[in-house]
Formats: sequence, C-alpha cells, structure tokens
Amino acid sequence: MSQHSPRPLEHLAPDLPPVEEVAHLPRGFRAAGTRAGIKSTGDADLALIVVEGAPAAVAATFTTNRVPAAPVRLSQEHLEASAPDGAGRYGYVGAMLSTSGCANAATGPDGLADQRALAEVLAQAAGTEVSHTLAMSTGLIGTRLPVERIAAAIRATLADGLGQSDADLAAVAEALRTTDSRAKAATARLTLPDPTGAPVTVSVSGVAKGVGMIHPNMATMLCFMLTDVAAAPGVLHRLLQPVVARTWDQISVDGDQSTNDTVLLAASGASGAAALETDSDDARRFARALEAVARSLARQQAADGEGATTLINCRVSGAPDDVDARAVARAVVASSLVKAAVHGADPNWGRMAAAAGNAVTAPYEVLRGAGLDEEAARARGGRAVPITAERLRIDIQGTPVFAGSPVPFEAAALSERMRASEVLIRIDLGQGDGQGEAFGCDLTEAYVIENSEYST
Amino acid sequence: MSQHSPRPLEHLAPDLPPVEEVAHLPRGFRAAGTRAGIKSTGDADLALIVVEGAPAAVAATFTTNRVPAAPVRLSQEHLEASAPDGAGRYGYVGAMLSTSGCANAATGPDGLADQRALAEVLAQAAGTEVSHTLAMSTGLIGTRLPVERIAAAIRATLADGLGQSDADLAAVAEALRTTDSRAKAATARLTLPDPTGAPVTVSVSGVAKGVGMIHPNMATMLCFMLTDVAAAPGVLHRLLQPVVARTWDQISVDGDQSTNDTVLLAASGASGAAALETDSDDARRFARALEAVARSLARQQAADGEGATTLINCRVSGAPDDVDARAVARAVVASSLVKAAVHGADPNWGRMAAAAGNAVTAPYEVLRGAGLDEEAARARGGRAVPITAERLRIDIQGTPVFAGSPVPFEAAALSERMRASEVLIRIDLGQGDGQGEAFGCDLTEAYVIENSEYST
Repeated sequence: MSQHSPRPLEHLAPDLPPVEEVAHLPRGFRAAGTRAGIKSTGDADLALIVVEGAPAAVAATFTTNRVPAAPVRLSQEHLEASAPDGAGRYGYVGAMLSTSGCANAATGPDGLADQRALAEVLAQAAGTEVSHTLAMSTGLIGTRLPVERIAAAIRATLADGLGQSDADLAAVAEALRTTDSRAKAATARLTLPDPTGAPVTVSVSGVAKGVGMIHPNMATMLCFMLTDVAAAPGVLHRLLQPVVARTWDQISVDGDQSTNDTVLLAASGASGAAALETDSDDARRFARALEAVARSLARQQAADGEGATTLINCRVSGAPDDVDARAVARAVVASSLVKAAVHGADPNWGRMAAAAGNAVTAPYEVLRGAGLDEEAARARGGRAVPITAERLRIDIQGTPVFAGSPVPFEAAALSERMRASEVLIRIDLGQGDGQGEAFGCDLTEAYVIENSEYST
Repeated sequence: MSQHSPRPLEHLAPDLPPVEEVAHLPRGFRAAGTRAGIKSTGDADLALIVVEGAPAAVAATFTTNRVPAAPVRLSQEHLEASAPDGAGRYGYVGAMLSTSGCANAATGPDGLADQRALAEVLAQAAGTEVSHTLAMSTGLIGTRLPVERIAAAIRATLADGLGQSDADLAAVAEALRTTDSRAKAATARLTLPDPTGAPVTVSVSGVAKGVGMIHPNMATMLCFMLTDVAAAPGVLHRLLQPVVARTWDQISVDGDQSTNDTVLLAASGASGAAALETDSDDARRFARALEAVARSLARQQAADGEGATTLINCRVSGAPDDVDARAVARAVVASSLVKAAVHGADPNWGRMAAAAGNAVTAPYEVLRGAGLDEEAARARGGRAVPITAERLRIDIQGTPVFAGSPVPFEAAALSERMRASEVLIRIDLGQGDGQGEAFGCDLTEAYVIENSEYST
C-alpha cells in the first residue's frame, strides 16, 4: 500500500456569479399558479405565464426520450411553426402553461388532441396565436388530462388577470410540484448596457420541479426560466445549450429519463437593455448568470431526490476533455452502490473507482443537442472513457483516499464527515484539462418504498 | 382510449436445449473448493480447477471496466502469452483459481505482484507453466489478498489431490459465493461424432457467482464453464462471444459493472469427440448447449440479485435489429422505477414505455467485444434506439396493456399475477425482426439496507 498521503485535490467549482434561491418575475411577464382539479389532493396544479405585448423569444430543451409526452410534441410543433429555422428548439412564445398530476404521456392521438384543445383555450384567453403557446406537464403516465376542468381554470384565471409580483412566479413554482418536498427557484441579476450605453439592471429567474425519475439528459424535470434581456431566439438557443449540458444533463436521481422533461428560457426584452449578440462579452456575462441559475436549480433538484437525505456532488478534473469529465462525474453519482454507500456514510472509494471505470460518454444524440457538431458528436458519443488506474486520484470530503493505489486514511473520522447534507467526491484522471461535475443523491429505503407504492 | 384489446404478444424465448441446474465435472478436469481464510466467516473461499494432461483450450470474457482488478489484468497477460493471436481473449490453460472475499481491485502494483506470486505457486503445485494459469477474484475492492494463507491452501489442496466428481465442481460453486444466497450451476449434454463418426456424449457445465453490482456487460459475476469437447482456442472464442452478448451482457441488478467480471470457457477435448470447426453444424449445436447453460446461469444470477424477490424477464421483438432489441430489454430491466413497480406488483406500463424510450445501444467497445466488426460497432454503438410510440406494444404477464395507446385491463387481477417469482414483460417495437431479452430483479428495501451497511 502506498505510504505517501497526497494533498487533497482542489475543489474547483465553476466560477459563476451569486444567485438567490428565490423566484423573481422579470419585467414583461405575468404569472399565476392555481388549482384546476387535476391533483386529487386539491393542491395547486396549473401554472400560467403570459408575455406582455409582442411574443417573447424562447429557447427550449426537451427530453430525448423516444416516447415523448403530448405537451413535448405539441411544443416542438409550435416552435417549428413560429421559427422554421429552429428545428423545434427555439421560436416565439406568447403564453405558457404547465399541468401537474397527469403527464399526458403514452396517451396516443387522443392525448395529443387534448393538448391541442388546451392550446386553443390558452391562445384565445391570452390573446395570442395557438402556435405561440407552449405547454409542459408532469405526473402519471398513461392517464388523460381533465380537459374541461383545466380549460375552465385557464379562462377564469386569465379573466381575473395574472399577477406581476415575485409572489406570482413563486406560485408557479408551487403549482409545478408533484412529489417535490419543496418548491425550487433561483434568481441572478446583472448589469447590461442599453442601446445608448447606459447601465440597466436585468434579471434571469428560474422555477423548476423534479424529484423522481431524474437522470442525466433532463429527466422528469420542468423548468421555466424568464429574463427581461432582449435576444433573438437563435441567440438564446446557443446560450442555453451548453448551460443545460453542464447542469441539467448532469443530475441523476434514479437513472430514468422522463417522457416530459422540458426547460424553457423566454426573453421579454422589457429591461430596455440592448439585444444580446452571439459571442459578445455581454452575452457571455449573461450566459454565466444563466448557468448560475441553472446550476442552483439542478442542485436543488438533486438534493430533493425522492427519499434523499444527502446531495452528492462529484467533480472531475484531468480528463481528456469536458465530455469525458462529465461522463465520469455522471457515472459516479448515478451508481446505486455509490449512492447506497453515501447513505451509509461509508467512504467506499472502491465503488467510486469502479463507477468511474464504467463511464460512457453521452450518446450521439445528446451531444448533438448540447451543441457539438456532427463529426465531434459521432466520434465522441457513446464511448467508454479512457481511465488509467495508476493515474487516478480520488478524494472524499477533502480527504485523499486513492492515488494510483490506496491511500491510508482515518475511516471513522471520514465517515463522520460524510454525515452531512452534501458530500463532495473529487476525481482526477491525470490525463488532460477536461473538467465537469454532476449532482446526485443517496439511495435510501424511503426511495424504494415511495416508488413501490406510487401506483398506476 | 383505445377500445380494442389486442391479443397478447407471443412469448418468444430462445429455442435452446434443456439444462439441469446442477454442476457436472466434464472429463479432463479436476476440481476443489476449499477454505483459505480470506473470508472472516470461515466459509469456503478458494476454488481450484486443474486440467489433466496437456493444457486445455480456453476462451474468456472480461469486464470492460476501465479499472480492472489485478486477476483480470494478469489473466489477460497470460492469455496473450499463451496465444499471441488472441489479444488476451483466448489461449491455453493448465490451472485456474478463484478467491472470494477480496477483489484485489484498485490495489495498484502491489496487488498485481500478489496475484503474480499466487500464479507461481499454482503453476508449481499443478505442474504447469505460469502463463497457463488463470485467476478470478471477487469481494471487497481496495484490500490486499492474504497471499501466504492462500499459497499454503493451494499447496495443501493440490498435495492432497483434486477431486474428479460432480460434487467437486459443486464445491467450486460454493467457494465462489460472496453475498449469493445460493450456489449457481447448470449443465447441458449433447451427442457429437468422434473422428470415426461414432456418437460420443459430451457435456458443458458452468458454475457461477454474482449478486450485487450486476449490470449489462458482465458485472460482478464470475463463471467457470468446462467442457470435454475439443476445439481450438480461436474457435471457442467465436462460439463464446455471441453467447455472452445474449446472456450475461443482458443481466442487471443495479447498473454497476464490476472491476472483476470474468467468464472462462475451457475445453479439455477428453470426450474423444472430433474437434469443433467454426461454422460447422456440430459447432452450432454445441453453441446452443453453451447458450442454454449461460442463459440458465444468467437467470439464476438475476433472480438472486441483492434483496431481490422477483426475477424480471423482458423480451423485445420487432426491433430494427438484435442490438436495438437487447438495448431496449436492458433499459427496461435496469430502470429503478420499473424495478420498484415490480416490487410493488404495480402494472405500471408507463414506466416501462419511458424506460424503453431511453434505451441506448451498448457502447462501441462492448459491441466490438461481442464480435461486431469495426464499422458496424462504430455505426451502432452508443445510439438511441428509434422508437415510435404509435407502433409500441407492451404486455405484462401475458396481458396487453399498451398498443399505441393505453389498452384497458383489470389492474387488480394483473397485479395479483405480478405477485410471482418471475414477471415477464413483452415489448414489440413494430419495426423489424430484431429480438432480444434481458434479466433483472425487483428493487427492494433490503437492497438498500444491504448496500448501505456493506462496509469498506
């Protein structure tokens, strides 16, 4: 056994601006969270967001599940209609809705017809075009939406008028919840120049849900992100793609990707700031704020995994490239044996090394979706990550445990430090400059009980 | 909702000869299972198999984990030495050992030196060359083997002489166990011609272990398969590859692939049957017997997954090809939500459809290992399986539940039929002739408890 005790690995976290874990409604939007009677509990289950004035630019990321739910299919169709160059990934939006309690997934042509009917109701009530509506849904698969009740709630809520306060976006966060133990929100602010060069404070705020079925590549999570910056839909799309690849594609609760995952980023332009241009310094600064919000929400989601008691953050460095680093981080947080070990506060680095050794990069389709070009995605998708045990270093909560061979450590003391709300696992592959992180949670008896009893 | 109730999908199982779930020691081998003091329980933990006379032909499949254990690395090195054309996948063997209780994984150069020392002891005691020894190991990662105790046990057991009865191979099965609740064995027999054309009865028998950390692509499972047929190492290799792809690569307990997985197939030639030639009818008949043994062992392993109460068998048809079908079957049995639903006897076909929709084919490296050529493996590895919800059909225990849209069924009655030792999920993609199956098990509270408490 190696007798040297190497220094802990540096705990590199992305250099991002601060966020507050609160909902803030940016200028140019109105919002409401209300009850439509979808959930048998009577809890809030309908979220509505309407853009004031002209439709806002919007970019979206949807599940890559090959059995997408009706709201995903309809939203992609509407985006294709509103911006034919966007391939269903960006376009324009006047009104958005989200329903909780019924996923409207695997419901066939009837389910799609239900979703179309709601789009027409929303468009009419909000005074926008049907193709400028977008929808999300979450809940049971295979059940039909109660269309009449939802339609009545949409009409009544819009007739009353939507709110303009931060509390109204917080109500949206509440209405998104299913088995989430708490609502999830994050807000970042920054200063951008207006067309004359004068400074304008802008904001980007996100509200999200997602607990069960969370896995890399956007598994059952829904997120509205709203901002008052101005940007063309294609610009928003190019800003959003890499952010999703580094945040939501890197969370895992149980390895299952949902049929419904959706992230929408809508930009009203109501701040008066000059429109963002691709590759400008201002766009890069905005992208960092956007990533800070996305990372905060992703962390909140992983921490609230079904039955979870501990957030697991795995940070990987020294990989051949970032795609490889993210694959290793994801493999570690997705490992059932690592998750169970963290639950038992067991510094079982052997399971971590084994999980890293199994890492496979995201498939071609996901890398394309994250913005890689065709050739790079083909060359790098679905490949085992090259790892050399002799160069591998692992530390847990700052304690080196492996550096090519086992490093002696005080197991009882480290176990004690693992009894925390968050456990940090750092892995260095000793090969290159690639970095990445992933978020997961421990595997508990409560997860099994919850998912054995949650019934069709 | 669809009002028709389609006929159940056919339950195509591979057309394989019968097997007995018992150990049988083929001619040409001697075996022993004994105690070397590795396990603190005092249970059997050392298995030894020696070939009588000249070294036997052997083919092997090893873990694709990038952090392979010392016995895996040494066995590959020895195979490369004994058959330079085999790339560490086939060669010759005179003696084999397996140790249980310590994986000798992530132990660095010292662990490899330990394994070399044991190989020298075994070679000397068995009267064979060091490069004609092979080794497996299973148990805790990161701990060192008690080399002196194991060496003493090897010398003492070989000095006493190994046994020649079926009970001796059964003792090997016992010595392989770690958290297995029972030993696993299977035997098939067939008749082959001798060089004069006269019929000879030959056998192929396997003993295996594997419970935790079991996942597609050979996760912590060890298997010795022995046969008295005659075949060149390269012929054995080409017979073994597709069998592993259809059986062990298709079992999943918890999604983690071990650092130690190994399957060895050794052929003594002692039956007197004529040597098998690639692509001959006799080779194909032998391959079916081999697959029957492998499939039986894979089923026994999945059924004995840690904490499991129910074996899950997913059979997929109508896929574009067999690689896609196997990916879908694997995705379904590996889904935590499907596994938890089966534990709760919940006919939650929505989770099955969602899991199928996430299926990604095995990575390039695994497809190459399964015998696909370079171009096909590059084109098909790590790709999302194309699925069209409208063509998808699912049935559970023979009851149609989805056929493009939900099919009405009696939930209580189906739930009752799911309270069984085995649950069969049939999925048809409605696209082509590709077929495949996978085996998994339900996810239980006991799994979590066992793996939170199993300590480093």
